[in-house]
This record gives sequence, structure tokens and C-alpha cells, in this order.
Amino acid sequence: MKIVLIGAAGTIGKAVARELSSRHQIIPVGRSSGDFHADLRDIPTLHALFEKISQVDAIVCTAGSVHFGPWNELTPEKLDIGLRDKLLGQVNLVLAGQRSLSDGGSFTLTSGILSENPIRYGAAASLVNGALESFVRAAAIELSRGQRINIVNPTVIQESMPAFGPYFRGYRPVPAADVALAYSKSVEGSQTGQVYKVW
Amino acid sequence: MKIVLIGAAGTIGKAVARELSSRHQIIPVGRSSGDFHADLRDIPTLHALFEKISQVDAIVCTAGSVHFGPWNELTPEKLDIGLRDKLLGQVNLVLAGQRSLSDGGSFTLTSGILSENPIRYGAAASLVNGALESFVRAAAIELSRGQRINIVNPTVIQESMPAFGPYFRGYRPVPAADVALAYSKSVEGSQTGQVYKVW
Repeated sequence: MKIVLIGAAGTIGKAVARELSSRHQIIPVGRSSGDFHADLRDIPTLHALFEKISQVDAIVCTAGSVHFGPWNELTPEKLDIGLRDKLLGQVNLVLAGQRSLSDGGSFTLTSGILSENPIRYGAAASLVNGALESFVRAAAIELSRGQRINIVNPTVIQESMPAFGPYFRGYRPVPAADVALAYSKSVEGSQTGQVYKVW
Repeated sequence: MKIVLIGAAGTIGKAVARELSSRHQIIPVGRSSGDFHADLRDIPTLHALFEKISQVDAIVCTAGSVHFGPWNELTPEKLDIGLRDKLLGQVNLVLAGQRSLSDGGSFTLTSGILSENPIRYGAAASLVNGALESFVRAAAIELSRGQRINIVNPTVIQESMPAFGPYFRGYRPVPAADVALAYSKSVEGSQTGQVYKVW
């Protein structure tokens, strides 16, 4: 399969590339790294990406930022960061990519444990993750030509514990390699509309 | 209790007012009707509302629009309708209203069945409803002074079946009066972070 991987340089992205690259052709995409450049916040770059790549069999996104910070400092502007990037970036990736995705091809997006299990400072991330999971359930019944869509919901990643550990006390971290298996399940399996939790 | 009700003129809003008004003081708020005017899409009107009303014991929102329409005509602009109105409108209502909400006071927001059970044409609504439910779970652990927040997730309303019935085949409608009970449970109960499904 020919698989576009947005966020290929990230912690999860690298693990997904490692998991899938022995069996498939990976096209790594990043904001400033990878074979092609695209920015989730910039819709024309997503359209340009698919014009260049033309047909692919799977589109995987492991990119997307959100604001973390104290509740009493939360503003519409800070909420907008994750809305424009992780949330609408991934939604617009689907809208922009569906014409380039082959019959039976799959989208695999990324949410996170905060959709169900909130932490302090994480309200914007919870909102974004919950939105993405419901969007994926809805998109799954709307996509045509047998196209599929699933989303991976990881807990905190082992490799990210030095940075995020203090915010995720009591959350058992998982290695990025384990999270990558869920992307394989989505891309190489046949389900659609699923939220794959890796907790 | 002194209860602000945003969307008081709507189908659910009227039923909530009917349920709560015999025991509490209802302050009806609408875009163009009610004792005070505010527009969920216009943050300054939300701040102005709470400056005028000062302290309240509960803030209930039964308002909020989203775009319904064919998947293959879905655009970022159409998604933005529900993001700005039903989603960010209710989130901004919480951010704007928390200082005017008494100790132990409650927010009660409104999502809908499409967060879990999608229908054709409903992808934007699913996204918004899922975002709101995850936001409420997160806000519940962040609010101070014993303030609470819950969300009511109704299925299609009996009174709205002439308009929405064709989109909700197989969904058992519920009377608005039954949905109103969930708002009573939130306002007059003690739970927080809950999604009250009325299906």
C-alpha cells in the first residue's frame, strides 16, 4: 500500500513508520520535514499535498497540537489553537484527501485519552479529542467507495513521560510501538468508525 | 434558585422553563426574545449578560445551531457554523458565566444523540456534540467553588418530528417535557461531569 503519514517526524509518527514501512510504501509528510510539506492549519497546503501525491491507499495523521494550561487562563484564543490545528486540521485532511484515497482506502486519525479521562490543564485537549471521535463515527457512514475511517486514542506515551509525566500521574504510559499497532489495525484491517483505545 | 435559561424560546427551552419555573426564578434569555438578549456567537454579549444579571445559581443553555447537509458539500465554512454557535457558544458561556455563578451553582449544557449515533447529513453536529461532552467532563474537574457542570444529550424531540423525522428514521422520539427532567436533575441535583442521555 501507498500510505501518506502526516506527522511522520513525531514520536508516534516515527513508530508508525517503523511498524508499517517493512510492508508498505510510506510517504512521510511534515510541516518542515518529510518528503512533502503540509500544515494542518493551512487548508491550501493539504489540497496541494494531494495534488502532488495523487492516489494513495491510506492517509494516517499523527500530528496535531492543542493548548495545555490553567483553566482560569483559558480564553477563546487559546481554545482556537487546538480547534484550528488538531481538530479542524484532521477534519480538513479528510475533506481534502478523500478524492485522492483509493476505493476501500482508509483514514486513520489521532485523538487521545483526555476525551474520556480529563486531567488538569487539559480542557481544550478533551474538547478536541471528543470532537474527533464523534466526527470519525459520523464520517464512517458518509464516506463513499468503501473508504474507511478510524481513530487511535492513545494514553500518554512512554517516550513523552519526561515532558508530560507530571500532568498524567496515575496514567500507565504505553510505548509508541504499542500505539503504532493500532494504526496498523486500522490501515491493514477492515473496520470503520472505530475508536482504538491504547491505554 | 435564580436560573438563567439561554434559548428559553426554543422547543426544549420552553419545556425546561415549564419544569423549573414553579420552584425557581427563571431568567429567560434569547437572541431576540426573553428578558435579556445574548448571542452565543458573540462573546461580548455573553459578558454583557452576566454584568447585567450579576449572581445566579444555575446557568442552563438549550440553544445552539449546527449545519446539517450532504457530506460531499461539507466545507470548512459550513463546519464553522456549529463550531462558533453550539460548540464555542456554550464553552464561552461557561468561561464568561463562571464568575457570576454562585458557590455550588451549576452549568447545564446541551449536546445530542449524534455524538454517539450518527445520521446522514449530521457529521458537523456529531463533531460538535462529542466536543461538548468531553469538554464538560474536563470542565467538571477544573471549576472552582463547588461549581458543577453537566450536559443533556437528547435524542430527536417529539415536537420536532415534523421537521427532523425524515433524518431520524428508527430513532424513538422523546417529548420535550421528558428531556426537561434531565435539566432538572442537573440543576437540582448534585452531580457534576455527567452526560444525561435522554433516548
